[in-house]
Amino acid sequence: MPRLRDPIHGFIELSDLELKIVDSAPFQRLRNIKQLATTYFVYHGAEHTRFGHSIGVMHLVDRAFCSATGNYARDSGECLFCEVDQVWYRQLLRLIALVHDLGHAPFSHGSEALFDVGVEHEDFTKKIICETEIAPLISAVGEKFRQKYNVGEEYSITPQLLWRIYGEKNPESNPEYMARLADFKFLKTFMDSELDCDKMDYLLRDSYYCGVNYGKYDLNRLIDSLTVYYNKNQNIKQLAIEKGGVHAFEEFVIARYFMFIQVYFHKTRRYLDKLLVYCIGEILDQARYPAPVEEYLNWNDDLVIEKIHQKVSSSENAARFVAREVMSCVYETHTHANSNTNSSDLQVYRMILKKLKTDMPDAVVEEDEANKLAHKIPILEPYDADSGKGIPIISRYLNRPTSIVDESLLLSGLGKPINIKRIYVDKQHSQKAEEIVKELLWEEE
Amino acid sequence: MPRLRDPIHGFIELSDLELKIVDSAPFQRLRNIKQLATTYFVYHGAEHTRFGHSIGVMHLVDRAFCSATGNYARDSGECLFCEVDQVWYRQLLRLIALVHDLGHAPFSHGSEALFDVGVEHEDFTKKIICETEIAPLISAVGEKFRQKYNVGEEYSITPQLLWRIYGEKNPESNPEYMARLADFKFLKTFMDSELDCDKMDYLLRDSYYCGVNYGKYDLNRLIDSLTVYYNKNQNIKQLAIEKGGVHAFEEFVIARYFMFIQVYFHKTRRYLDKLLVYCIGEILDQARYPAPVEEYLNWNDDLVIEKIHQKVSSSENAARFVAREVMSCVYETHTHANSNTNSSDLQVYRMILKKLKTDMPDAVVEEDEANKLAHKIPILEPYDADSGKGIPIISRYLNRPTSIVDESLLLSGLGKPINIKRIYVDKQHSQKAEEIVKELLWEEE
Amino acid sequence: MPRLRDPIHGFIELSDLELKIVDSAPFQRLRNIKQLATTYFVYHGAEHTRFGHSIGVMHLVDRAFCSATGNYARDSGECLFCEVDQVWYRQLLRLIALVHDLGHAPFSHGSEALFDVGVEHEDFTKKIICETEIAPLISAVGEKFRQKYNVGEEYSITPQLLWRIYGEKNPESNPEYMARLADFKFLKTFMDSELDCDKMDYLLRDSYYCGVNYGKYDLNRLIDSLTVYYNKNQNIKQLAIEKGGVHAFEEFVIARYFMFIQVYFHKTRRYLDKLLVYCIGEILDQARYPAPVEEYLNWNDDLVIEKIHQKVSSSENAARFVAREVMSCVYETHTHANSNTNSSDLQVYRMILKKLKTDMPDAVVEEDEANKLAHKIPILEPYDADSGKGIPIISRYLNRPTSIVDESLLLSGLGKPINIKRIYVDKQHSQKAEEIVKELLWEEE
Amino acid sequence: MPRLRDPIHGFIELSDLELKIVDSAPFQRLRNIKQLATTYFVYHGAEHTRFGHSIGVMHLVDRAFCSATGNYARDSGECLFCEVDQVWYRQLLRLIALVHDLGHAPFSHGSEALFDVGVEHEDFTKKIICETEIAPLISAVGEKFRQKYNVGEEYSITPQLLWRIYGEKNPESNPEYMARLADFKFLKTFMDSELDCDKMDYLLRDSYYCGVNYGKYDLNRLIDSLTVYYNKNQNIKQLAIEKGGVHAFEEFVIARYFMFIQVYFHKTRRYLDKLLVYCIGEILDQARYPAPVEEYLNWNDDLVIEKIHQKVSSSENAARFVAREVMSCVYETHTHANSNTNSSDLQVYRMILKKLKTDMPDAVVEEDEANKLAHKIPILEPYDADSGKGIPIISRYLNRPTSIVDESLLLSGLGKPINIKRIYVDKQHSQKAEEIVKELLWEEE
Repeated sequence: MPRLRDPIHGFIELSDLELKIVDSAPFQRLRNIKQLATTYFVYHGAEHTRFGHSIGVMHLVDRAFCSATGNYARDSGECLFCEVDQVWYRQLLRLIALVHDLGHAPFSHGSEALFDVGVEHEDFTKKIICETEIAPLISAVGEKFRQKYNVGEEYSITPQLLWRIYGEKNPESNPEYMARLADFKFLKTFMDSELDCDKMDYLLRDSYYCGVNYGKYDLNRLIDSLTVYYNKNQNIKQLAIEKGGVHAFEEFVIARYFMFIQVYFHKTRRYLDKLLVYCIGEILDQARYPAPVEEYLNWNDDLVIEKIHQKVSSSENAARFVAREVMSCVYETHTHANSNTNSSDLQVYRMILKKLKTDMPDAVVEEDEANKLAHKIPILEPYDADSGKGIPIISRYLNRPTSIVDESLLLSGLGKPINIKRIYVDKQHSQKAEEIVKELLWEEE
Repeated sequence: MPRLRDPIHGFIELSDLELKIVDSAPFQRLRNIKQLATTYFVYHGAEHTRFGHSIGVMHLVDRAFCSATGNYARDSGECLFCEVDQVWYRQLLRLIALVHDLGHAPFSHGSEALFDVGVEHEDFTKKIICETEIAPLISAVGEKFRQKYNVGEEYSITPQLLWRIYGEKNPESNPEYMARLADFKFLKTFMDSELDCDKMDYLLRDSYYCGVNYGKYDLNRLIDSLTVYYNKNQNIKQLAIEKGGVHAFEEFVIARYFMFIQVYFHKTRRYLDKLLVYCIGEILDQARYPAPVEEYLNWNDDLVIEKIHQKVSSSENAARFVAREVMSCVYETHTHANSNTNSSDLQVYRMILKKLKTDMPDAVVEEDEANKLAHKIPILEPYDADSGKGIPIISRYLNRPTSIVDESLLLSGLGKPINIKRIYVDKQHSQKAEEIVKELLWEEE
Repeated sequence: MPRLRDPIHGFIELSDLELKIVDSAPFQRLRNIKQLATTYFVYHGAEHTRFGHSIGVMHLVDRAFCSATGNYARDSGECLFCEVDQVWYRQLLRLIALVHDLGHAPFSHGSEALFDVGVEHEDFTKKIICETEIAPLISAVGEKFRQKYNVGEEYSITPQLLWRIYGEKNPESNPEYMARLADFKFLKTFMDSELDCDKMDYLLRDSYYCGVNYGKYDLNRLIDSLTVYYNKNQNIKQLAIEKGGVHAFEEFVIARYFMFIQVYFHKTRRYLDKLLVYCIGEILDQARYPAPVEEYLNWNDDLVIEKIHQKVSSSENAARFVAREVMSCVYETHTHANSNTNSSDLQVYRMILKKLKTDMPDAVVEEDEANKLAHKIPILEPYDADSGKGIPIISRYLNRPTSIVDESLLLSGLGKPINIKRIYVDKQHSQKAEEIVKELLWEEE
Repeated sequence: MPRLRDPIHGFIELSDLELKIVDSAPFQRLRNIKQLATTYFVYHGAEHTRFGHSIGVMHLVDRAFCSATGNYARDSGECLFCEVDQVWYRQLLRLIALVHDLGHAPFSHGSEALFDVGVEHEDFTKKIICETEIAPLISAVGEKFRQKYNVGEEYSITPQLLWRIYGEKNPESNPEYMARLADFKFLKTFMDSELDCDKMDYLLRDSYYCGVNYGKYDLNRLIDSLTVYYNKNQNIKQLAIEKGGVHAFEEFVIARYFMFIQVYFHKTRRYLDKLLVYCIGEILDQARYPAPVEEYLNWNDDLVIEKIHQKVSSSENAARFVAREVMSCVYETHTHANSNTNSSDLQVYRMILKKLKTDMPDAVVEEDEANKLAHKIPILEPYDADSGKGIPIISRYLNRPTSIVDESLLLSGLGKPINIKRIYVDKQHSQKAEEIVKELLWEEE
């Protein structure tokens, strides 16, 4: 069995047919899409790409699925799925994970602003897996599966099926989907939820490459704590956490919080990402990525950088980007500018902004606002199986799950979104701007 | 310069005279006082003792002091202390750190219940540094210091001075202390505050030996973020954090929170510590450690274990301890049983307790309550220089520090103390007890 | 399934019956036998005991066995053992690993000099597993196994069988052993060979606790490289390495070499171990550990230390040990004093020794000689299946294994044993001794 | 002081003027020169570039220089250099380290074959530091230095001086160089010797990014062991190792050995590097990099990759490279094919090669030969101060250094160069080729 050496997870095994997907051009393109966009200008170690990440998520989704269903079987005394369903779902998940980032634009999220209105990178993912050489490679995995387990067409594996499970907005119109609704919703959670393997991988990977500790958490413990909440009456299957693992989950959520504050929302990186978008806008036809998938696939980080270099003499933004001429951040609010405790924070911000614009009419002043909810778990309401929201916590004494709201005081402290507003001023005016800010804020003793 | 290889900090340098303190009998006794009491019965790696910890704190206190005063000097353009004061304070701190745990009873905090009323392990620390062979070794460091820097008696180093700075309840009665009041208070913070080096070391060390990730945080970043808040008008000097380091500090506080929940308050360990105290009570004269220091120093983990083994045939507790016959924890409350959101938590607890006692009159039922405030930083009030409470946050624009309350939404989530109540039942009755609990809690669907 | 958190290997699972062995008194005694004897006086982190190591070896032996047989099956297309043999052997190995160190004397190898002539710690291991409460616990694992797999008495598991496989000098006299001769020899290799899991565990564990890098190697890679050389004609089954793993094996051997030189043969530790033996000799009846197993089991590190403390006033050695009065090492030879290239090394050594004794008749001069062959792999002859010596290297093109001699130039550099001779002199005379040595060795320019 | 977060060394400080060099275009170009060429196709984590490496070497060279001169001063009681020389040399070294890799061609060593005859990447380094914007930035550091220390022109820092020390073939013709000959030779050792900081950094960095353990060694211990051999009579100053650090040095040399075998000489990577050179040859004018420095600086990995993509339809090599169509390695010799013990190894190799060519006339057969001496330390002769070769080992008893030959049996095992010869065959013929090889090598039993 082929295997790849990964700095985060050690050896990662994959099948020959999965390797063919990895070897395909659309997947190899990921070697040229930096995971953290311009972050490497700040944390120079962060030169990693979506290539390793995609393989890492495939690895984790397998471990997580086996752990959750295994723990459920151990505790309940019965298997969640019949044997062939179990291996089929596992294979579906591995493939979804492998291809889930194929549609990323250059510099990952950095340049998504340049899609057509309403388009997201996931739309390109769909096109790539359904319309390029990836499509038959996925189907081939399915054929081999059906042969090996000697099962019928209902166990086909197709790009459309993967997409229906992972990305489709309204999959319920599809009768095949509805036939396995509870199961497919369950599968999706491994790729898109507060507990998904995408986050599990990128936190560790980004921390490693940046050389920071913030995003590290106890992966083994977290995965070992996974289980399933299965409500037979309502036919609900949900990825859940054993009560003993609540703190591993808290640690995971907090790791993410710190990574946003310290790395993803780093002030220099935010500015550079913004500048990058301006530059890409200038090099693209009508400031939009091309819609046809084959053309779109030509775009990657290298090409963007090359084009920006060619524009240096004609575009101020390009010149600035190439010289990494970063404007100075002369003021920033607290981390949660819009929370109650900091009610006056935004007032102060606006006051400063106005003053700067008034006193320095020639200066270039730019604003930025970084927003993120650390987690989307409803923290003020008990766990509600119907809504499907929240992370169910399973304990041995209780027949119904409890909610994180009862278990984690710590996460309730993260109920307000991160909201950092910043004012940038061009280098020539930055010293004066700082003086203005200081004077405004200085209090007589 | 002699140096010791430490698994946490690498090589640790110390002077020849400091090494003499390490080589003394009272210090070597620390090799026989386990850092985490009975925790090694649960996390078998945790066989480490106060010996390495004491050396680690000495190392950190030096780094932290140099970083804080160095950053202050860099930012303010002036030194906080004159040159000889700086090196003298540094030496004082190193010595305080080195000897601060000498008074620990066997199994560290595990057996402090067996001191005379009103006595704490710190009282023994005082006696040991002032009345044993440690005393002249401390003074010798002082003499060498005075020679080297060619300074007078005001730069003596004595056990009494160390104690006055670190442990004295009311040092203000001493005029020499008052002459350097602000400085000495500042020094104490490095050893006893929400930012002290004691915590910095034990979190990393305990995590390492237990093999867990919970207590890890970014030590280098935290130390690099230290600075000093110096209010000349009020002559206040306080250990502070640069605004950019707030998140490193949050990470540190949360690491401590997790260690309490996952390791220090582990249910089996709590029970064993309790059982241990019963056992030691039985082997001590009148269930009290001897007051004379020389006698006290004879007590260490080995002796306690030996004596317990000798008691096995005559004491049920000893027999149980040696066999590690742990009672089963059949119920525990949430982590913050006494917080608002869990108002009914204690009611449920009491209901269960009552039911167990009623239904199983022959069972041995034991309660435990583990309490801890994750941090003592006032989170509801702005930073107040007078009180000396809180961690001042220094930012470049402001002439007065802000408080963590303004900066960390996350820590405000830790405003309620940990409060875990548990019910233990003897092994023979544990299965029935679990059924009773389950029946009580099971809800009809 | 119960599991233990290990700092080296993470979570380690074991069955309920295996846990009973861990919970037994003879096994718990290992918590009181330091893995590295007096090494913790030099590397203070090295406070770990045989307890964690024994559990670690059980874990590794399982992984190694599954990897080797799994790789063999993958490459040859056939299983080495039938299914029930496979799980039976695996269980046998786990138990052997778990109990293999039960017979250790206090301070591990440190005090083996105090056994009766011809006795080794393995003899006590045999007695402990066959004659104490361990015996029925082992048999119980066997009974459960036979029930689970519904097999007959030929699949019993008994202490005697474990011993026959692991420790018996001449097991060939036993017909049951002979019936599975090739298999049992194969099993033994996992516990006693140049590739055994005992070494695999202690190198990593000792490095971790000492805080050194020397003993670290790529465990996962090494285990992944294991396979089996199976010669059907001669009915030989041998633990082997895939050609691609030769360098992982080299790394492993070199890790061991460095640990011997840097840690196990550390000059201060060597002296303290020697002093310890003198002390234990004085506290034991007739300077011998008691032969009856129940008495022997009373001896552990704590008891030894307590007894030494009681002897302080009456024994010079005890006093010296308690004060850690280490004699100074004033001269040591190169690492391989007896190799060709250093032919004159021993001459110089003897010259210095003679001179010291002559010039300082009052000084106490002590010699030490530390010997070890870094590996016992025959490096000058091709691999010979008959002899069973050597590590067979399996490559895909060749039908017979090659020998490490063909593959590793590096290991051939380790063909000579470590041989370090040292001269220690009492502290009072050490300075003069050093001058004498220096004068002897100084060359005119 | 600005500082950069590095995944290998943590925070790295640098001065404002040094940062200007980092910010310059020729330095930023290093973000686009992969450290390990095509290795990331094999170890996908290895996406790191010469940018981080250059900063890492600057950091290490500072630490190493301070450690060596500090240890010398401590042991000899006198400083090696006067104070201003000490800081000047340190600054020179930092700058040399920072700029030493500026001349690298795309994909580092991968494409050096495409320089004009006799040209090396160092020649471009020289041009870049002397002829581009780097030159005045270097001089500016010198001016600031002279101001700060109030010293004359003899303490200028110029690109020419840096080059004279680091790269000049015959610097002895320069009288200024001759005036400080011994010192400058000493400085060079930190950047170009068996102990240089270039190797120290890349081993750790490459291991980290590849996710392997092979290249790790005890950096702190190695640096702590550095000292200086100063022979006043002959005015020789040489970077040396304290006897106690010999094993740290052995570990370092072996780490390098393993990295060559396992990573740098990986068979797929070797093939891809070769293919890359063919491709670059096709896209360059006359298959040569341009000589003018400004043109040369335009070339980086991205441009090369872009150009190769553009050539896909017209060049078979380009098509193959883009598809990563790697030929199969059907045979390779042992690691040291040309050592005595493997005398017949090359014969076998040639036999196989001939047979393959004869039996498969249509197959594409390609050879590769990877050569490297693990270290260049003369191991068969005693240390010779005149030659300047070898690593002097300093011990406290001896007035003259000993040689590694006396101290390390292990390194003597590395006296033969690595020499691996490989045969690659195109995919279509690879299976048949393997059968031919197997048949040739199979022995009748």
